[in-house]
Amino acid sequence: MGSRSSSEITSKPIGIFDSGVGGLTVVRAVMRELPNESIVYFGDTARVPYGNKSTATIRRFAAEIVELLIEEGVKLIVIACNTVASNAREYLMDNYSVKFVDVIAPTVEAAIRVTKGKIGVIGTKATIGSGCYMRLIKKLAPNVEVIQKPTPLLVPFIEERHYNHTLDTLLEDYLRELRDAKIDTLLLGCTHYPLIKERIERIIGDEVVVIDSSHYTAKKVKAILQQHSMVNETAKPSHKFYFSDIPVDLPKLAHDFLGIEIEPYLKVLG
Amino acid sequence: MGSRSSSEITSKPIGIFDSGVGGLTVVRAVMRELPNESIVYFGDTARVPYGNKSTATIRRFAAEIVELLIEEGVKLIVIACNTVASNAREYLMDNYSVKFVDVIAPTVEAAIRVTKGKIGVIGTKATIGSGCYMRLIKKLAPNVEVIQKPTPLLVPFIEERHYNHTLDTLLEDYLRELRDAKIDTLLLGCTHYPLIKERIERIIGDEVVVIDSSHYTAKKVKAILQQHSMVNETAKPSHKFYFSDIPVDLPKLAHDFLGIEIEPYLKVLG
Repeated sequence: MGSRSSSEITSKPIGIFDSGVGGLTVVRAVMRELPNESIVYFGDTARVPYGNKSTATIRRFAAEIVELLIEEGVKLIVIACNTVASNAREYLMDNYSVKFVDVIAPTVEAAIRVTKGKIGVIGTKATIGSGCYMRLIKKLAPNVEVIQKPTPLLVPFIEERHYNHTLDTLLEDYLRELRDAKIDTLLLGCTHYPLIKERIERIIGDEVVVIDSSHYTAKKVKAILQQHSMVNETAKPSHKFYFSDIPVDLPKLAHDFLGIEIEPYLKVLG
Repeated sequence: MGSRSSSEITSKPIGIFDSGVGGLTVVRAVMRELPNESIVYFGDTARVPYGNKSTATIRRFAAEIVELLIEEGVKLIVIACNTVASNAREYLMDNYSVKFVDVIAPTVEAAIRVTKGKIGVIGTKATIGSGCYMRLIKKLAPNVEVIQKPTPLLVPFIEERHYNHTLDTLLEDYLRELRDAKIDTLLLGCTHYPLIKERIERIIGDEVVVIDSSHYTAKKVKAILQQHSMVNETAKPSHKFYFSDIPVDLPKLAHDFLGIEIEPYLKVLG
């Protein structure tokens, strides 16, 4: 990087990726927090979901995406997918010299700040199975009790926009154990879940604080860019949204997550 | 094929493929119908599900699998995935000279034989969206009324083995319209659905005949092999099960579909 001028680096885009559309909740928060930054997003919609796949496959897919984003000249990469962050973060950091920010640490730090001692964590099977939330919470706050629960059907419900009493029944199934254990804080360990945050809050009950990743991850991105004098203060941002498949529903679904219309571009991987 | 002896061809395996594990219901029926045939199965578990992906992506994935099966020397390929059959069948037949059997025509013929005039069809979004069941039924039996309903969340429920009251609630959502329309025959347009056939029968009601693909597809495979003198009458069969990802749950899930233990082999595609 030494040969590049500082302004050359600051004007580079931020890369953000996810297995599909969930990471767009993080894009939304980054746009709000850092309105002058350009963003290159990649959603691996041809191979979504990652949440029930093996660690080896998740790493292989993530590496392909990181290489694509590096080719796009990004100054920093946000792993906006809890499944990738929990199964491939160290692998990516060991193999690529670009700066990474992921959704896990900022969210865990936020949950520890608010908890009175008992945190529940929900996420995909691969995320929960990795044990990474449990380990990080125990490392930063050894006295906090952690109760984890894989909730693998929530992503399909959200992607199908199947928002009715059946989703409530499913949430009752999934959250009963956490409610009975009297958690005081619930960490949403998946970037899809903010779309049903209010429904989750209603079912888990008023006394539980529900925390999602997007806001805290965006704050962390800002802090790292500031720390390295890489914030883009002046430029007019331009965003690119790549997807490995563009099914008919994609524009509607992307709007659910991002709140604005986007023009998706097809980029075939693998 | 002219240069090969007949016995050389008969001893070749049958190729069977699916986006994941659903096609194993067809494997099970083929094993029962043709106990001397060797089978090479490929399940694209790294990229499953296909049901909400675009036709272009489904075709690309299917072509990669067909090429792999042709390299394995198969004498016939069974498209044991309704999503692929409905979106890529003609494309595959135009591009590869191997014989194909798929799950759609045999099942439609069976449904037409039993119906009194009103057939319901359920399947993934891509299957129903292709309109192929509607077209084929209307072509073979113009007076039969067809009511289609995409049921995209059934595959995730079956893959998660989430067999409880929430699945019943979901089935109530999905089947209400078909029950109200008083269908007399329900065609299960997805190779996953046989695993919840009894639950579907209970919810749709006794007066509806529920038809799944596996048995009729296996019969069709047998008829085609007989027609071309390609049945393997004597050999001891040997089977191979390839998957593009082997997540922890795979052996258990494969057992659900096939009824026997298998040793899955990893074969990375793309």
